[in-house]
Amino acid sequence: MTGVGHFADRLCEAVARKGNAVVVGLDPRLESLPEALVEACRATYGSTTRAAAEALWCFNRDIIDAVHDLVPVVKPQLAFYERYGLAGMQAYVQTVRYARDAGLLVIADGKRNDIGPTAVGYAQAFLGPLQVFEQTVPGDFEVDALTVNAFLGSDGITPFIDQAQQHGRGLFVLVKTSNASSGEIQDIAGAGRPLYEHLGQLVEAWGAPSRGHCGYSAVGAVVGATYPHQAQALRALMPHTIFLVPGYGAQGATAADVVGCFDAHGYGAIINASRSILFAFRTSTYAAMSHTAAARAATLQMIHELRQALGTTPKVPGKNAV
Amino acid sequence: MTGVGHFADRLCEAVARKGNAVVVGLDPRLESLPEALVEACRATYGSTTRAAAEALWCFNRDIIDAVHDLVPVVKPQLAFYERYGLAGMQAYVQTVRYARDAGLLVIADGKRNDIGPTAVGYAQAFLGPLQVFEQTVPGDFEVDALTVNAFLGSDGITPFIDQAQQHGRGLFVLVKTSNASSGEIQDIAGAGRPLYEHLGQLVEAWGAPSRGHCGYSAVGAVVGATYPHQAQALRALMPHTIFLVPGYGAQGATAADVVGCFDAHGYGAIINASRSILFAFRTSTYAAMSHTAAARAATLQMIHELRQALGTTPKVPGKNAV
Repeated sequence: MTGVGHFADRLCEAVARKGNAVVVGLDPRLESLPEALVEACRATYGSTTRAAAEALWCFNRDIIDAVHDLVPVVKPQLAFYERYGLAGMQAYVQTVRYARDAGLLVIADGKRNDIGPTAVGYAQAFLGPLQVFEQTVPGDFEVDALTVNAFLGSDGITPFIDQAQQHGRGLFVLVKTSNASSGEIQDIAGAGRPLYEHLGQLVEAWGAPSRGHCGYSAVGAVVGATYPHQAQALRALMPHTIFLVPGYGAQGATAADVVGCFDAHGYGAIINASRSILFAFRTSTYAAMSHTAAARAATLQMIHELRQALGTTPKVPGKNAV
Repeated sequence: MTGVGHFADRLCEAVARKGNAVVVGLDPRLESLPEALVEACRATYGSTTRAAAEALWCFNRDIIDAVHDLVPVVKPQLAFYERYGLAGMQAYVQTVRYARDAGLLVIADGKRNDIGPTAVGYAQAFLGPLQVFEQTVPGDFEVDALTVNAFLGSDGITPFIDQAQQHGRGLFVLVKTSNASSGEIQDIAGAGRPLYEHLGQLVEAWGAPSRGHCGYSAVGAVVGATYPHQAQALRALMPHTIFLVPGYGAQGATAADVVGCFDAHGYGAIINASRSILFAFRTSTYAAMSHTAAARAATLQMIHELRQALGTTPKVPGKNAV
């Protein structure tokens, strides 16, 4: 490790400090951003890719300012930045630095996957500082954790685990995703159980050598809130695995749907919402507010809903070893 | 389409023009590049990430110069560029532009995957020009085709297909990868057949509405050369799907292993080699040569091996409809 501590412990501490397990997904879409913000960027840079990327970054900065004292984690989705090429990736880099400077943990949602030496390339890009010649330098794309896709099996995952362990970073492996068609592949039943359960067992095993003081490992799982029944089965199967749970809010899942992803102390899961927070100002509930005030209000509302449903506030990291 | 023609037709024409189906994988690794080339970049930029990225780009330019008249396609692997952050992605952009200017088709090996509007982001990044405000501009990362991972099911793939069809681009969906552990997930048997066959049928169906004059669709499949038996079964199951075949050379597969991926006219498959061409100068066979001369000689040798094994040279695009 490079002196930053174990990822799962850092995550549990951050959840305890903020008193909730909310992840704000930074998925900015140009067409949904506040018109005044976008026009200001166009006034400076013209109708260019640079202006679009600048708008993403300015919007993210506003959102981070609005929620950084409330939540433990933000999760930029790489597709929304890659769309705008080099300028877009520059906006991602600016966003990540700003979020980390604001004391937030950052999960890059890239769903990267490849084998052997190629996976090492992705792992070095996202999970820790970079070796360049004889030097160790901060990587532009470096974050606290990365989502990965395990379709290629162990040799696609081991390089990420090695890098994560070495630098106190984490992974979240796709197990059961939140989208409607996830079952086409993930529910295929072989040897008496669906693929997602098979994957769940692999993830639990991959994480076994890297458990922190909190009892959870650095190898987490992505488990969609839109499948609460399956999520509960996976929770039982994967007692040492932190779930990153997408699907809350705009995708239709509620606090009641995610309760089964947590342990009895309010740990073990982090719940992502993107659109329902970023674009709250476009909904009737928050229509009278600025985008920042609306994002803050929607975040507070989500924290409230989760606390009500859980009946507990996560408070004692390290005491919930399972 | 944006006037560039159907991807599968363009690919078949390129294969016919060059008389072979070789893909040179542009997977540069700093530690394997020629020392003199790397030192020249360090002399200019110091021991920095920028120097590393510059070395990747200069090496790729040399390789493209050495093979562009021989092969139809190059395939940069995004992990090797992302590793070096923004400077690395700049090297990717320079490489893609140089390759396209040299008349090569370019497949970005990114194995991207996500759902709905997020997949649209990746599709717009890689498959066609970009909509920015009211304008259509060339995207920095734009290529002719992209590899994608279908673990999330149809709603993760449809956005890529839509964008590909609209702009005459292609996809290659992971079906059976070349690595040792690919069977952990991909061979899981459900409903009487392994997952990779199930995926093969999905890919063939996804491609059905987008077949070109050559008989093949714009939705290809990644099928590893290291599993010749499975590849042959998939060939029978997917008669209108072009296979992108990794695993040749350094990963151990030979010309005999890939014959079953082709149709009777020498179409239907493109065969990738990376290390065995890029780093041929480091092998005893080509030790006396420069890296460019060695790459050219190794490419000519691979073309020769494939022609011998196939007993045919692809010559008549459009006549091999299946």
